[in-house]
Amino acid sequence: MILPGDGIGPEIVEQAVAVLEAADKKFNLGLSFEQGLIGGASIDAHGEPLTDAQLAAAGECDAVLLGAVGGPKWDTLEREIRPEKGLLKIRSKLGLYANLRPAILYPQLADASSLKPEVVSGLDILIVRELTGGIYFGEPRGIRTLENGEKQGFNTYVYSESEIERIARTAFEAAQKRGGKLCSVDKANVLEVTVLWREVLDRLAPEYPDVELSHMYVDNAAMQLVRAPKQFDVMVTGNMFGDILSDAAAMLTGSIGMLPSASLNESGFGLYEPCHGSAPDIAGQGIANPLATILSAAMMLRYSLDMGEAADAIEQAVSKVLDEGLRTADIHTEGCKKVSTAEMGAAVVAAF
Amino acid sequence: MILPGDGIGPEIVEQAVAVLEAADKKFNLGLSFEQGLIGGASIDAHGEPLTDAQLAAAGECDAVLLGAVGGPKWDTLEREIRPEKGLLKIRSKLGLYANLRPAILYPQLADASSLKPEVVSGLDILIVRELTGGIYFGEPRGIRTLENGEKQGFNTYVYSESEIERIARTAFEAAQKRGGKLCSVDKANVLEVTVLWREVLDRLAPEYPDVELSHMYVDNAAMQLVRAPKQFDVMVTGNMFGDILSDAAAMLTGSIGMLPSASLNESGFGLYEPCHGSAPDIAGQGIANPLATILSAAMMLRYSLDMGEAADAIEQAVSKVLDEGLRTADIHTEGCKKVSTAEMGAAVVAAF
Ligand SMILES: CC(C)[C@H](C(=O)O)[C@@H](O)C(=O)O
Ligand SMILES: CC(C)[C@H](C(=O)O)[C@@H](O)C(=O)O
Repeated sequence: MILPGDGIGPEIVEQAVAVLEAADKKFNLGLSFEQGLIGGASIDAHGEPLTDAQLAAAGECDAVLLGAVGGPKWDTLEREIRPEKGLLKIRSKLGLYANLRPAILYPQLADASSLKPEVVSGLDILIVRELTGGIYFGEPRGIRTLENGEKQGFNTYVYSESEIERIARTAFEAAQKRGGKLCSVDKANVLEVTVLWREVLDRLAPEYPDVELSHMYVDNAAMQLVRAPKQFDVMVTGNMFGDILSDAAAMLTGSIGMLPSASLNESGFGLYEPCHGSAPDIAGQGIANPLATILSAAMMLRYSLDMGEAADAIEQAVSKVLDEGLRTADIHTEGCKKVSTAEMGAAVVAAF
Repeated sequence: MILPGDGIGPEIVEQAVAVLEAADKKFNLGLSFEQGLIGGASIDAHGEPLTDAQLAAAGECDAVLLGAVGGPKWDTLEREIRPEKGLLKIRSKLGLYANLRPAILYPQLADASSLKPEVVSGLDILIVRELTGGIYFGEPRGIRTLENGEKQGFNTYVYSESEIERIARTAFEAAQKRGGKLCSVDKANVLEVTVLWREVLDRLAPEYPDVELSHMYVDNAAMQLVRAPKQFDVMVTGNMFGDILSDAAAMLTGSIGMLPSASLNESGFGLYEPCHGSAPDIAGQGIANPLATILSAAMMLRYSLDMGEAADAIEQAVSKVLDEGLRTADIHTEGCKKVSTAEMGAAVVAAF
C-alpha cells in the first residue's frame, strides 16, 4: 500500500514508486501497488486522518510505504482529527511496535554535518524505538479542571514487561547482526517505568551472550550523541525518548533527507517511511529529496518482502548517483550538481 | 549552605569557597558559610540522602551552593535512598521550580566543541527548565503486578496551569533581559499535558509584547540544537524535556565543565550547582574542573544575594585565567597549560 500523505509526501513517493517499478522489471519481483490516503489528504477527503476502511486495506497488503503527514492547513483543527493521529492510528492498530531508525553518514555527504568530520565520519547507529506504547498511548490522559478552577493536563507513561521484552529482543537481535553492542536508554534514577525497562533488559541479556549490553540515562545519551556518537552501535529506548534521540541522531549526519525508517510488527509486516517530515514550506516545488523514501522502499523489499537482492541494488544505485555528484538542494554543496526531485529519482532508476 | 556532595563535589566546592572568601575580603560582603551533607555523603552518615534537619538548615540560609551527588558506591541501594533522591527532595521541598541553565561557548574554548566552529561560535542560550513538577514528581507512579502476572511500570506526566504560568513568567522575563526571543518546547501533537503548556504560554504572550514567542516540538528542538543552535535565545520547557535538552545544549559547547546553573524559588532563594555530575571516575585525583562551580557561586551572588559587583569580578577572573591559557584536563588543548583543580582555583583567586 502506498500512502503518499501530505506536503512533499506525494512528490517523493512518486519517485520511490518509479524506483520500485524499475526494480520490479529488473528482478521480476511481481510487485503490485495500491494507493491510499492518510493525514491531511484523508481529512480533506473523509474528514478524518485515517479511515477504518483505509486501515483495513493497508493491513491486507504485504507492506506500506508512507510519505509524510501534516501541514499548517490542518494545524487549527481539533486535536483528535489532526494528520498526526492517522500516523499514530496506523502504528498502533497494525501493532508496528518496532521502529528502526538508522543514522548513517554517507561518506559522499560528510560535509553536510554540523559536527566536525572526525566526530562523525563513518557514523552508523541504529536506533530501535518502541512505537506502540509508552506515554504516546498511555491512559489516563487529558485535560481536566481541578476543584480550584484551574486546568491540569496529564499523560501516563506506562510499559508492561511483555511490551519491553519484545522490543528488547528486536534490539538484541539487531545488535547481533551488527556490531554486537546495545545501549539501552532510560531514566531509571527518576522514573519507575524505566526501572522496569532496565530490569527486563538485564534479565534478557544472558540469552544474548554475544551482545554487550549497557545502560545510559537519557540526558547523558543526548550528551554523548553530541560529544562522541561513534561510541554507539544499536540503541534501544521507549517511544518518547526514541522520538527525541532518533531525531537528534539523524541530524548528526546533517542529511536527514537521506534517512529511511521501518516500523515492524510481530510477523515482519512493516510500514516504511522517511525520517523527515512533510516539509510544507517546500511542498510542490519539486525540490525535495526523494532518497530517504527510495531507501525506505529498499528497506521494505529487504525486511517485509524478502527481496534482499533488489534492496541491495537500490542502495547501490543511490550510492552511485551520490558518487556522480547529484544533489538535491538540502544536501547540495559547492561543486556538485543541483537536481530536482524528479531528476534525482530518474537518476536512481538510470543507475540500476 | 555549602553542600559538597559526592565524587568530585568536595574538590570543586573547596575551590569555589576559596573564591567566595576572596570575593568576601575584596568586596566586604560579610559572607558566612555552613557546610552540610547531601547524596551519598549523607547516606553514609545518616542512612538517607538528605535529612529533614539538613533540609531545614539549608532553607534557613540565604542560598545553597552544591557540588554534585551520586556514584557507583550507592548504585545498588534501594531506589528510595539513592543519592539522587536528596537532590530531588531539596529541589521539591524548597520549591526551586525555576532551573536556569545557560549554554555558553567561551571564545577561549571554541575548539573543545564537537561541532564546527561556524555552527557554535558565539553560542549563548539560556534553557529555563521547570524543576519541581512534571513527570519527575507526578502521581500515581510505581511498578504493579497485572492480573496476568506480569509487571507494569507507570509514571504520570502532569502540570497544572499555575505551575506552567510561573515558569513561563520566569522565562518571559529572562527573554526580556536577553535577546527578546523565547522558544517553548513541547510535544503538543501527542501529549495533552503539553497542549495545556502551549495554551498557557500563548495566553501570557500578550503581557510580554517585547518578547517573540515561538513553539517547537521536542524532537525538532533536539534536531535544531544540533543543526543550528544559534537560532535560540531563551528556551523554556518542562522537567523531563529540560533535563534532556539542557544536557544536549551544554554539550554543544564541548565544555560542560564550565557551565553553572541556578534553581530558584518564588522569593529568589536559590540552589546553585554545576551542570556536570559527580564524575566518580576522576574523583579524588585533583584534576576536576572547578570553574562551573566557581561560576555557580558567581550566579549565587548575583541572583540570591544581590552582590552583582562581586559576581562580575568572579566572572572576569575566570575569563582572565582562560586568557592566560590555564586549562584543567577536560578542556585542555595543545599549547595551553594543564593545571590541577587546586591550581585553577588559586589562579582565579589570584586574578581578582
Ligand atoms: C508526527 C509525530 C506524531 C511523530 C512522533 O512523534 O512519533 C513523528 O515525530 C515521528 O517521529 O515519526
Ligand atoms: C541526578 C538527576 C536526578 C538530575 C535530574 O534528572 O534532574 C540530573 O540529571 C540533573 O539534570 O540535574
